[in-house]
Amino acid sequence: MALWSGRFEEGADAFTQRFGASLPVDKALYAQDIAGSRAHAAMLAAQGVIAAEDAAAIDAGLADVLGQIEAGEFAFDVNDEDIHMAVEGALTAAIGEPGARLHTGRSRNDQVATDTRLYAKKRATDLMAANVALRQALIAQAEAHFDVILPGYTHLQHAQPVLLSHHLLAYTWMLARDFRRLEAARDAADACPLGAAALAGTTYPLDRAMTADALGFGSVIPNSLDAVSDRDFLLDLLYACSVSALHLTRLCEEIILWSTAEFGFVTLSDAYSTGSSIMPQKKNPDFAELIRGKSGRVIGDMVALMMTVKSLPLAYNKDLQEDKEGAIDAANTLEDCYICAAGMIATLQVNPDAMMAQARKGYLAATDVADYLAKKGLPFRRAHEVVGHLVLLCEKRGCDLEDLTLDDFKAECDLFEADIAGALNLEAIVAARTTYGGTGHEAVRAQLAEAKARLAADEALLA
Amino acid sequence: MALWSGRFEEGADAFTQRFGASLPVDKALYAQDIAGSRAHAAMLAAQGVIAAEDAAAIDAGLADVLGQIEAGEFAFDVNDEDIHMAVEGALTAAIGEPGARLHTGRSRNDQVATDTRLYAKKRATDLMAANVALRQALIAQAEAHFDVILPGYTHLQHAQPVLLSHHLLAYTWMLARDFRRLEAARDAADACPLGAAALAGTTYPLDRAMTADALGFGSVIPNSLDAVSDRDFLLDLLYACSVSALHLTRLCEEIILWSTAEFGFVTLSDAYSTGSSIMPQKKNPDFAELIRGKSGRVIGDMVALMMTVKSLPLAYNKDLQEDKEGAIDAANTLEDCYICAAGMIATLQVNPDAMMAQARKGYLAATDVADYLAKKGLPFRRAHEVVGHLVLLCEKRGCDLEDLTLDDFKAECDLFEADIAGALNLEAIVAARTTYGGTGHEAVRAQLAEAKARLAADEALLA
Amino acid sequence: MALWSGRFEEGADAFTQRFGASLPVDKALYAQDIAGSRAHAAMLAAQGVIAAEDAAAIDAGLADVLGQIEAGEFAFDVNDEDIHMAVEGALTAAIGEPGARLHTGRSRNDQVATDTRLYAKKRATDLMAANVALRQALIAQAEAHFDVILPGYTHLQHAQPVLLSHHLLAYTWMLARDFRRLEAARDAADACPLGAAALAGTTYPLDRAMTADALGFGSVIPNSLDAVSDRDFLLDLLYACSVSALHLTRLCEEIILWSTAEFGFVTLSDAYSTGSSIMPQKKNPDFAELIRGKSGRVIGDMVALMMTVKSLPLAYNKDLQEDKEGAIDAANTLEDCYICAAGMIATLQVNPDAMMAQARKGYLAATDVADYLAKKGLPFRRAHEVVGHLVLLCEKRGCDLEDLTLDDFKAECDLFEADIAGALNLEAIVAARTTYGGTGHEAVRAQLAEAKARLAADEALLA
Amino acid sequence: MALWSGRFEEGADAFTQRFGASLPVDKALYAQDIAGSRAHAAMLAAQGVIAAEDAAAIDAGLADVLGQIEAGEFAFDVNDEDIHMAVEGALTAAIGEPGARLHTGRSRNDQVATDTRLYAKKRATDLMAANVALRQALIAQAEAHFDVILPGYTHLQHAQPVLLSHHLLAYTWMLARDFRRLEAARDAADACPLGAAALAGTTYPLDRAMTADALGFGSVIPNSLDAVSDRDFLLDLLYACSVSALHLTRLCEEIILWSTAEFGFVTLSDAYSTGSSIMPQKKNPDFAELIRGKSGRVIGDMVALMMTVKSLPLAYNKDLQEDKEGAIDAANTLEDCYICAAGMIATLQVNPDAMMAQARKGYLAATDVADYLAKKGLPFRRAHEVVGHLVLLCEKRGCDLEDLTLDDFKAECDLFEADIAGALNLEAIVAARTTYGGTGHEAVRAQLAEAKARLAADEALLA
Repeated sequence: MALWSGRFEEGADAFTQRFGASLPVDKALYAQDIAGSRAHAAMLAAQGVIAAEDAAAIDAGLADVLGQIEAGEFAFDVNDEDIHMAVEGALTAAIGEPGARLHTGRSRNDQVATDTRLYAKKRATDLMAANVALRQALIAQAEAHFDVILPGYTHLQHAQPVLLSHHLLAYTWMLARDFRRLEAARDAADACPLGAAALAGTTYPLDRAMTADALGFGSVIPNSLDAVSDRDFLLDLLYACSVSALHLTRLCEEIILWSTAEFGFVTLSDAYSTGSSIMPQKKNPDFAELIRGKSGRVIGDMVALMMTVKSLPLAYNKDLQEDKEGAIDAANTLEDCYICAAGMIATLQVNPDAMMAQARKGYLAATDVADYLAKKGLPFRRAHEVVGHLVLLCEKRGCDLEDLTLDDFKAECDLFEADIAGALNLEAIVAARTTYGGTGHEAVRAQLAEAKARLAADEALLA
Repeated sequence: MALWSGRFEEGADAFTQRFGASLPVDKALYAQDIAGSRAHAAMLAAQGVIAAEDAAAIDAGLADVLGQIEAGEFAFDVNDEDIHMAVEGALTAAIGEPGARLHTGRSRNDQVATDTRLYAKKRATDLMAANVALRQALIAQAEAHFDVILPGYTHLQHAQPVLLSHHLLAYTWMLARDFRRLEAARDAADACPLGAAALAGTTYPLDRAMTADALGFGSVIPNSLDAVSDRDFLLDLLYACSVSALHLTRLCEEIILWSTAEFGFVTLSDAYSTGSSIMPQKKNPDFAELIRGKSGRVIGDMVALMMTVKSLPLAYNKDLQEDKEGAIDAANTLEDCYICAAGMIATLQVNPDAMMAQARKGYLAATDVADYLAKKGLPFRRAHEVVGHLVLLCEKRGCDLEDLTLDDFKAECDLFEADIAGALNLEAIVAARTTYGGTGHEAVRAQLAEAKARLAADEALLA
Repeated sequence: MALWSGRFEEGADAFTQRFGASLPVDKALYAQDIAGSRAHAAMLAAQGVIAAEDAAAIDAGLADVLGQIEAGEFAFDVNDEDIHMAVEGALTAAIGEPGARLHTGRSRNDQVATDTRLYAKKRATDLMAANVALRQALIAQAEAHFDVILPGYTHLQHAQPVLLSHHLLAYTWMLARDFRRLEAARDAADACPLGAAALAGTTYPLDRAMTADALGFGSVIPNSLDAVSDRDFLLDLLYACSVSALHLTRLCEEIILWSTAEFGFVTLSDAYSTGSSIMPQKKNPDFAELIRGKSGRVIGDMVALMMTVKSLPLAYNKDLQEDKEGAIDAANTLEDCYICAAGMIATLQVNPDAMMAQARKGYLAATDVADYLAKKGLPFRRAHEVVGHLVLLCEKRGCDLEDLTLDDFKAECDLFEADIAGALNLEAIVAARTTYGGTGHEAVRAQLAEAKARLAADEALLA
Repeated sequence: MALWSGRFEEGADAFTQRFGASLPVDKALYAQDIAGSRAHAAMLAAQGVIAAEDAAAIDAGLADVLGQIEAGEFAFDVNDEDIHMAVEGALTAAIGEPGARLHTGRSRNDQVATDTRLYAKKRATDLMAANVALRQALIAQAEAHFDVILPGYTHLQHAQPVLLSHHLLAYTWMLARDFRRLEAARDAADACPLGAAALAGTTYPLDRAMTADALGFGSVIPNSLDAVSDRDFLLDLLYACSVSALHLTRLCEEIILWSTAEFGFVTLSDAYSTGSSIMPQKKNPDFAELIRGKSGRVIGDMVALMMTVKSLPLAYNKDLQEDKEGAIDAANTLEDCYICAAGMIATLQVNPDAMMAQARKGYLAATDVADYLAKKGLPFRRAHEVVGHLVLLCEKRGCDLEDLTLDDFKAECDLFEADIAGALNLEAIVAARTTYGGTGHEAVRAQLAEAKARLAADEALLA
């Protein structure tokens, strides 16, 4: 039975009941709804708005409903419309009139905002934990294969040799930024709307700070109209999820590339591959592809909520009922993707020989040969041109820079001397990039320590 | 049990099983999957690839599986991974070896594309039917309130008086265009990929035209790589849904405005309104708001799939498993929104007095006064300026144009004569817009006939 | 000077002038604006609304303005606000009072809709032509390298051998669908709003069919409110551009992959590559990357307009001034991308040896070995498992299927006989895929003919 | 002349030159590019990589180029490809060989990332300042009309009376959150990539901390691959702009509603309105509509960059050249919208009588009547039902709650007594909402102080 029956003379038919109901989505917020109601009831009693014994009955009744739901024994009915009505209806059925006093000084408008914020805080925190786990997996692989050299790419063309550890650490920095965005989303949710009532506050002597404290909120929202209509915290969560999902597309694109026959840089564990129903030889990077593909839904969820809130006047509008499904989906999706990516990275087999074989192709030493000339005084732009000619020469001969004679070098520029050989060795080239943030071994060792310190600090935030 | 077990030595754990499974989504395609398999088996037998008795056993077995699913007696198991495996597994469990011959000359890549296209065709057709129903409701209201005048708006400011029927018919033209887009989406899906196999076609002597015919497809896709990787037809469907959802936001925005206390142009039936848990007087246009808000998810679904397909190389990639959920959701959402809007429009109570009362405000006759002068030879730009001054005069006096004396008019321009009174009557102003597409009564009557003819033609398409 | 000065007592400052002006964007529509005005003036004269000599003066004056703009001699001034005011202002300055009569029976609302539709029609047609050119380039390469075999991929893993021609033709089918979407967008624009005036039609005896005919429109829009507020035709154009931009991301992703050191399948011509300012050896597929990256802006342009039209009530709202910039940008971007892609494809050097070398890796014959067994009566699912074991054996030995002895085969399944050798030859495997749409040589030859016929038909549409 | 000419034998034609050039967009970053180069040159000299006199020549030459650009005397040439080449080319033309040494130890990859970050920091800061100005305008209006009562709305239906000041302050809290998001975007940009070179760091003994300090960056990016490929800071800026643009759609929607004939709550100043070319009486809220409509492009810009970065492997890819245009556009758009909204709000005329007249309609006292009963012990759900019946009674009589007699009240519930009159007075109803965040006068006064304190703190951040 709808709770506004006094107002209406007609009934609502099954279609509008189903179409208007949010219960199939918002029942995910049952724990938050019950926690909010228990805090509200305790405050009402402390303020003398309801009797202490009514509050006690409400609290016990809600604890019982919670137990039923968690035990899977609660019968959700779409006619209850939403989780608030489902819980309150069951409560009142169980304890009678005290249940009917629970909604005093409260509206579903501030109630749903409270539930959603509690839920968003929890999910943002869960995502921060999963983010940390993925960074741990990346760092573990970076440590395990610290010295491995692969071609560094720009434009997917061989550019300069880099350490695999350096390459993997690049992702930990992206993810560390994502951690901050998730933290910002959690903090955005961390303000309590309870007490805003329908839109304007109430005439009951509510103690908003008391409920906010009881629910673990960091602050109380200072404007009741804003309290019931603000969904920025969900946009912040959706955005944080979207950017991180994009980072995962980059990581997974590389894993997919690296596990091709052409690259062969890594071999996925069987647990993170699948086969084909028709091609017996196939070992497909399905999970990397799924993660990559799921970026779409996360970003779609964000665009959806943006579209929904566009042009809404104050204060609450029913359009906002559409706020939760996308946010729940985006958080679930990203959490799964983090978990899957962590498992995939942790079990990835690296093939250093294949990486090195590729690193030997593509004239990766060319920049260092140009730098060699520049350090001998040739303006860099000229040195660049000289090496360009040497590369053309190699292409014509079908050889690499290492195969040229000193005379070949001197024919292009007489600054070349015998020590040019030193500029052509890949390990030496990598090692020579010693400045902060570069791929030189010492620089990467320092960076690794920095990444681990950041990780430890982030873990401490979650403890 | 996964079907590529020969290839793998490790098992997949529960997480990857769940993460990789599409069954919770693609079980919606059970009927299409079974129809596709039945057509494939019949063709294999006709071509002599499998024995007639095997085909008969397969057909009977699939009919039985279909019956079980439709009776709600089929036990879906996430370990089956997808609807294809669930159906085939059940078939083989029931009929043994013939079931294992069904997948001959077929891959899940062409199978899922076939299923999805059949599903998209069906849902596009369903949406075309719901689209027609909403247009019927609009046309019925246009006929029922043919003569009612309300202010026409530009910039949400009173502009010129228009017939309510003219205003409502504007939406039928938007919806008629949406019908065409849905039809285009249906046609885009209407080409059969079956026989493309994994990506390259097969070595079996398949008769692709036979399966395409049996399944009601209009054509056969001419390139096997394209057949397994093309999802344009889903984008077309998502786009058609998106534009129509946007049209509904416009309609619902107006219904919400019109049912405010300030406008008061319409009264929603109780069946399409809801109340408040805290404010006893409220009668909220929740359903119009929900429809407006749901535009977000539809457009989000489209953006999601666009993001997913971006940069995918040929041919099939697992990312495409993400194609169905959004398309199913968008079609379901738009169908519900059409149904809800049709009911809401059909039961809408129009308040002609309130409309006319507003039409009398805001100098709606101003354009016609300017035209009056222009027709007497004053360049329109000058006439416009004269009337601007008259409006300012009215604002200063707090009166309307009708309240000005002929002397007032003449003071601004001596072309005014006594017949100016005729240019100030709202009914006359409306009636005077006689050209094709205008709001004049005769023009709208012709337009109504045209809209009904278009509707009849579209209904005939669905018959 | 603003044209509503009669109404206002205050001036508009420079900021609001700039912020409100659309001239920097809509001056791109000058030709359409002038054509629309000339048609309108001729019709006004034919209907006796203005004098024939006024119409002649207007026509000559507008022809002169057009000449000035095309000669680059027209001074655009942001104070003119939009292209309509700029043109009309110049006209009236030149010819006096007749110029002030041009705007009779017309509003900027129907005028801008007319201009934009003419422009959209033109640009859609331009894009159809550029689409055809790209398909020509793809077909030419498919013909030039008809027999070349490369690995077909699913999940970017080697799957089955395919003809390069088959692979390239897949893109022509995507583009052929895009051609249809562009055609649909052109047709959506092909209806004339002129005569709708501000929103309600006019009191002048306009002949809307006459102006529509003169401007080459296929029909007249039947509802004036819809005529001034509909922007579906721009959404259709933006959508057509978006899907085609996505197809180009797929093509360019492959070109980028194929030109890596690891694949080496193609070499880009120097004209479609660039170098590095620091790495002398680099030859980067910059243009393929740019095309891939530009997909973002096209889709962003579409999302932008969808967001803008959401929740707009009837009829015209100023929000719609934001309609043009994105559509112009999307069309320009896609046209450039088509041209660039056509040049890149036309000048692409194919490396058949590298393709074949890769095709020999990855057990591409596995499916055919399974089919071999299935044709001997083994259920396909069992055959699949047998070949899975053979592949594992090869992996352990580090060899390919061709290197196994008949005894090795027989050890897994005694259905193998000496003729298994035939199932292992790549050319034979390709050739065996003879059914419609498959990669067999004859099937591809037929497909090529079909693609050329479709291309010819589309070219004929543009002639 | 392209700078990689040594590598290529063919020329690039005009089309690819134009298509590949970023100069028309990135010339907006000239100041940042020159600042970055001056810092780099000074550091190179300090580290002994180039001679002090070369650095001095470079510095003077760059100062001269800067002066030319700012004086509008610099001839940009699309053949220069990008701003980096344009500046460096002019420098080298002016000072010769020292200019060719500037690019030592640097790549365009780290150079463009540095320029873009400097630019993003600047624009984020500009937007923070414009955000503050808009909040000032809102607070000034809230103070000027502190006591004015208007109907508070939910579902755009009259809900409960609220203070206009309370309503306006709701927007300042949204904007205060936007300020934080802009600040986060600024901080995200505040890390220096210079020294990452092409992707791997360099072999020159660069002092990255020195250039970072000289350019005012807060930190140095710890991973060179991440440094050249990260564009999160632009996404953060685009997201901050997007959410704030959405907030402005809400504000502008209300201003448009409030300035309708039906609401009449506010009158826009002439400077922030426009007229019609055809309807002389029109005064349109064009600027509010434009701001509302421009939300589309801002969100489109964000979606565009998300689409562009999806699936990009490390490190730099040319796709990223598409990063700047959208970010520049979004920042420019939001800045203009802030300025326009501030002017519009500051000059808005409030019509308190119209607001109060509406507040008297719609049974705004209903909640308080229910609370009255609840405070007398009736469970709230029952009280709600009683008032629902009273409202129905009023609707039938066509009167308001104030018009009912005590007997009418008692007939529904005998808890009503004579003091019910007090619950029906709008001023009293507003004043009674005394809890934190409510619309009661004292609560709003406290909130106003809080909003001003937050504003002052934010202003201090910019000082």
